[in-house]
Amino acid sequence: MSERKRVVVVGAGFAGMSVAKKLAGKDVDVVLIDKRNHHLFQPLLYQVATADLSPAEIAWPVRSIFSRSANVSVFMGEVTGIDLDGKRIIGGDRELGYDFLVLATGAVTSYFGKNHWARAAPGLKNISEATDIRKRLLLAFERAENSEDEAEKRKLLNFVVVGGGPTGVEMAGAIAELAKQALSHDFRRIDPRDANIILAEGGPKLLAAFPDDLSDYTQKSLETMGVDVRLGQQVSDITVEGAKIGDDFIPSANVIWAAGVEVPDLKDWTEKPVDRGGRVIVESDLSLPGYDNVFVIGDAAHVKWGNDQTVPGIAPAAKQQGKYVAGRILDVLKGQSTPPFKYSHAGNLATIGRHRAVIDLNGFKIKGWLAWWIWGLAHIYFLIGIRAPALVMVQWVWSYLFRKKGARLITGSDAQSKP
Amino acid sequence: MSERKRVVVVGAGFAGMSVAKKLAGKDVDVVLIDKRNHHLFQPLLYQVATADLSPAEIAWPVRSIFSRSANVSVFMGEVTGIDLDGKRIIGGDRELGYDFLVLATGAVTSYFGKNHWARAAPGLKNISEATDIRKRLLLAFERAENSEDEAEKRKLLNFVVVGGGPTGVEMAGAIAELAKQALSHDFRRIDPRDANIILAEGGPKLLAAFPDDLSDYTQKSLETMGVDVRLGQQVSDITVEGAKIGDDFIPSANVIWAAGVEVPDLKDWTEKPVDRGGRVIVESDLSLPGYDNVFVIGDAAHVKWGNDQTVPGIAPAAKQQGKYVAGRILDVLKGQSTPPFKYSHAGNLATIGRHRAVIDLNGFKIKGWLAWWIWGLAHIYFLIGIRAPALVMVQWVWSYLFRKKGARLITGSDAQSKP
Repeated sequence: MSERKRVVVVGAGFAGMSVAKKLAGKDVDVVLIDKRNHHLFQPLLYQVATADLSPAEIAWPVRSIFSRSANVSVFMGEVTGIDLDGKRIIGGDRELGYDFLVLATGAVTSYFGKNHWARAAPGLKNISEATDIRKRLLLAFERAENSEDEAEKRKLLNFVVVGGGPTGVEMAGAIAELAKQALSHDFRRIDPRDANIILAEGGPKLLAAFPDDLSDYTQKSLETMGVDVRLGQQVSDITVEGAKIGDDFIPSANVIWAAGVEVPDLKDWTEKPVDRGGRVIVESDLSLPGYDNVFVIGDAAHVKWGNDQTVPGIAPAAKQQGKYVAGRILDVLKGQSTPPFKYSHAGNLATIGRHRAVIDLNGFKIKGWLAWWIWGLAHIYFLIGIRAPALVMVQWVWSYLFRKKGARLITGSDAQSKP
Repeated sequence: MSERKRVVVVGAGFAGMSVAKKLAGKDVDVVLIDKRNHHLFQPLLYQVATADLSPAEIAWPVRSIFSRSANVSVFMGEVTGIDLDGKRIIGGDRELGYDFLVLATGAVTSYFGKNHWARAAPGLKNISEATDIRKRLLLAFERAENSEDEAEKRKLLNFVVVGGGPTGVEMAGAIAELAKQALSHDFRRIDPRDANIILAEGGPKLLAAFPDDLSDYTQKSLETMGVDVRLGQQVSDITVEGAKIGDDFIPSANVIWAAGVEVPDLKDWTEKPVDRGGRVIVESDLSLPGYDNVFVIGDAAHVKWGNDQTVPGIAPAAKQQGKYVAGRILDVLKGQSTPPFKYSHAGNLATIGRHRAVIDLNGFKIKGWLAWWIWGLAHIYFLIGIRAPALVMVQWVWSYLFRKKGARLITGSDAQSKP
């Protein structure tokens, strides 16, 4: 009966949520589809992996966020293809028509063709992966405490993080804090402080997107925390026995992959040009070439920035794109034109450990405890944008500031499985 | 080098923890073994199943609780047998000698021989089972929202709880609150308030251990909340299609088993008499007949109470037994005698829903909101006993009072699997 236009948004990450939020209450029907039932605050996911936070502290049911937005419907389901000319998305044996389509499907862990490494070296892109890593890390210490075999013990207490970007730095720092501080008094036969944490980066420095002095500070901080940083070292093999890094084989039961991501599916679905990482190369209004009613945003999109850069895959960029596309759709409905998308880069920011972080605000550099507090406040600010109740925020801050490694649970049916 | 006696405690539930806590700092070596790494606050487990609480809010790493108790070692591992005469416990290919052994291994869900019902009707005894139930409940609503088939929709929105004891009552009440309140505005194509919640009990009343008027109150309260209570109805079959209750077959994708527990393994390990539920019939000092250095306590023990009753399987009883056995061991080491164990019953207490509970304090009966607040305070009191920091308690109370269904996450690798 309604003659309202239907906007289908695929993906409930930062980009997709931002579209749906801006269109909530407007004169369009919004259908938001995700294969999971929750929106994930990805920047804190590593803290689930290192037992600082519980999954429910950084993820919220999508439909509860839009509970009071009558024009937004949420579906949990998987999209398997698109009929661009028929204006329909396909999900298994079902289909759904759209007037506008926004693809905000995000990225997944990429092993650069070495997919068999995945079993031994999980990535960190969703809650299942994070709780899997948490289980591995905690079980490693439990098994080392139980072991009578020195070589096995060594293997269990060697932690290898592959990739020196923000996620790798955060993981290495958080594992160091777990081993050297949180667990330090909890065992009787091993000393968790004996754990080796190795951070391997193929390039010449950590945090490639940052100025050299902040990269140096990051490296020195990690080294002070007990992390063995290895730069310019390629990882050439990963098995359940360990990882080959440069010329060394490091026996390790705990390899974590933080070296890359890729965009699945969109090349097949759209049959349009993608970049090396599978990101769809979009027009200046973030639309799919040839289809001005279809948009690709967030980590899934290759968006030009200035002359020789692309917009980075970070939350603020995804949200800007989401807001832009929502505005663009409203403009089209009003018959108005829209200026091209323009990315506004606030800066780069990465945390190393408690009271240690680095921030580069377009050349204005901050490091140490001040940066850490700014990092914390920035995250709280973004979190408030997702989950309205201020009470919940207070609880989260409380929990983050005062509760150390409160989520050290090993659960799941194979909680006891041997390595 | 140490000539200290070794006390091995198997199981880190209320009973085992209570032994280890009382022996912490004493002149004995305590080894506490559990197949999981966490102590679980079982009485609130149903709130994990109904998405009120996260696992980490009701479970704590055992070893962190004993972090500062140098004479207590914690091992995560599974015991597979006991050599009573050789004073050794066996775990796979390893063994460990003891001077005193305390078996506090607890109970597991029992299907009374119908183990094939387990797949369609999970029980509620550990965190994995609770998160499994949570996933099923939440997915049922998601799938109903997606479904075009009225019969399938009906099956997805029929919830059957088998067993009218405290766990069954709590589950039925919490599912009713989830469907009729928490989710009521979150869907567009179904109305979660249309969910049917059926509570089936084979006996003539709910909460068999309670006085009749409190059982009646419980039934009327559940009915007000929209639960269909069916008394005197045997469940004769459960499949993935539904459950046969009395003469009715109820199509349901969500059957939850809260009808019974049993004690595994101890009959085989001890070769001593057990009762119908597998509980070991112990001496008046809770020792195993014939072995005065081996004790069985908690849900695993059949302990006489008065003339014709046994001590109930509730947390306060388990803790009393744990304290008693720790005292008994210390007495033996001092060459002192110990009076027989005497159970002191404070009362029975069950919650029906928010602001509705029943309490029977040895004949002094309370019901309604006052009982609910007493129930809440009693749980906080017990929780304080486990996890020292008062700050954490404040957080928990806050969370419990103000956060509604905050843990509505569907996670796990089969998060999208079809029914």
